[in-house]
Amino acid sequence: MIELIYKRKVNFYETDAQGIVHHSNYPRYFEEARGYYLEHIGFPYYKLREELRVDVVLLSLNVQYLKPVYFGEELEIRFSIIEKDKFFFKFRYEVFSNQELKTVGETKHCCLNRDTRKIIKIPQILYERMV
Amino acid sequence: MIELIYKRKVNFYETDAQGIVHHSNYPRYFEEARGYYLEHIGFPYYKLREELRVDVVLLSLNVQYLKPVYFGEELEIRFSIIEKDKFFFKFRYEVFSNQELKTVGETKHCCLNRDTRKIIKIPQILYERMV
Amino acid sequence: MIELIYKRKVNFYETDAQGIVHHSNYPRYFEEARGYYLEHIGFPYYKLREELRVDVVLLSLNVQYLKPVYFGEELEIRFSIIEKDKFFFKFRYEVFSNQELKTVGETKHCCLNRDTRKIIKIPQILYERMV
Amino acid sequence: MIELIYKRKVNFYETDAQGIVHHSNYPRYFEEARGYYLEHIGFPYYKLREELRVDVVLLSLNVQYLKPVYFGEELEIRFSIIEKDKFFFKFRYEVFSNQELKTVGETKHCCLNRDTRKIIKIPQILYERMV
Repeated sequence: MIELIYKRKVNFYETDAQGIVHHSNYPRYFEEARGYYLEHIGFPYYKLREELRVDVVLLSLNVQYLKPVYFGEELEIRFSIIEKDKFFFKFRYEVFSNQELKTVGETKHCCLNRDTRKIIKIPQILYERMV
Repeated sequence: MIELIYKRKVNFYETDAQGIVHHSNYPRYFEEARGYYLEHIGFPYYKLREELRVDVVLLSLNVQYLKPVYFGEELEIRFSIIEKDKFFFKFRYEVFSNQELKTVGETKHCCLNRDTRKIIKIPQILYERMV
Repeated sequence: MIELIYKRKVNFYETDAQGIVHHSNYPRYFEEARGYYLEHIGFPYYKLREELRVDVVLLSLNVQYLKPVYFGEELEIRFSIIEKDKFFFKFRYEVFSNQELKTVGETKHCCLNRDTRKIIKIPQILYERMV
Repeated sequence: MIELIYKRKVNFYETDAQGIVHHSNYPRYFEEARGYYLEHIGFPYYKLREELRVDVVLLSLNVQYLKPVYFGEELEIRFSIIEKDKFFFKFRYEVFSNQELKTVGETKHCCLNRDTRKIIKIPQILYERMV
């Protein structure tokens, strides 16, 4: 199992009038982390889209907001694939800041043929590298 | 139980390069729906924040993405409070478009004192109206 | 000249940690206003995209931020086309809240053929209605 | 004059159904670049906000969209302060991708006392470093 760490700072435009990161940004952070994963295994998402004509779509999203995150913090997202079969895969994410667990998330995905918009098996070359 | 319907169009800036509404917008739609709820029960969120010095925060989020939504569609979000105790409450949302169920979501919340950032009981006046 | 008024509330997720609407939302409000304009003249943008295979793109953007806008305010955007020739058109927007002018903006646009991504003349049927 | 280069990748959630980066993201990229500038001169924005109780606000924004940017591109934003007096300062940004100039922008700012929300002179310590 590959566990990766994706780091990124909080942008000011991601905060809200409560003074914290708005909750709708975490799904975006998770997407960034997945992009980093695909690069890491040698298959950046734009290649997947252009060369294999495959879209990765989100089927379900789950987020537990444990502690708020403030502007100026640097996030460390530790994440990995926790389930996988021929069609579906699941990521789990833990968002840390200052060594403290702030947020936990899970996302479930499948692949679509971009032209037909139909669900397809995870492309073999991708499947093998997703460990 | 109050079941409300919140309607809103999809904005072009909410779409992504897959040609569909990006998944991170649904938590924002849910937030808009809750704002509509608070207005409906006579307690718009800005009043809650300014007069009672109360913030409503998100503790957990759950979204099932059943079908994609495209630019030009008009969303109808049917939603209600499905659980409530002295401290916590949960909303459930069903997002329809063209009479078809597209997305289902749940959010769990509590109230904070804006000055101390501590969890407080749901203010009585709010609690009574949240049915 | 058609001058339209587009109304919309500020969403909580559009605020930032300064407690005001983040500046990057105004270009989005302007886009919403243009969408309203196209509907008003009987040519909703999704139709333009799907039936005529035309994209409207932004060439330049200009915003003067005169006063901040806070959560809970209701915006009234008064806007119209202020310049037009066979290829280009310009909108001007005035964002009011509580009868006070908060923000002024201008955007310049042209049309693209969606398939070639080349600039084209404004489609005749659209050109005639854009007054 | 300090000219800095701020690099960042395009996120998928920043694209729209035209398949390109949505125009409302550039003001956000500019904000990120300014954050990088403040760090570079030893004054990260969160310190400015918390230690000096100063907010930096946007007074005007100007963007020329020369060429579209696609998902998968890596942006290089070259930027610097092009005007400055005791109260106001202006940044100019050039966004490159694949060695090609895609977008040009300018932003004008001033500082506010966070408690009074009144315009103040640029704090001396900041003024001296902003070259």
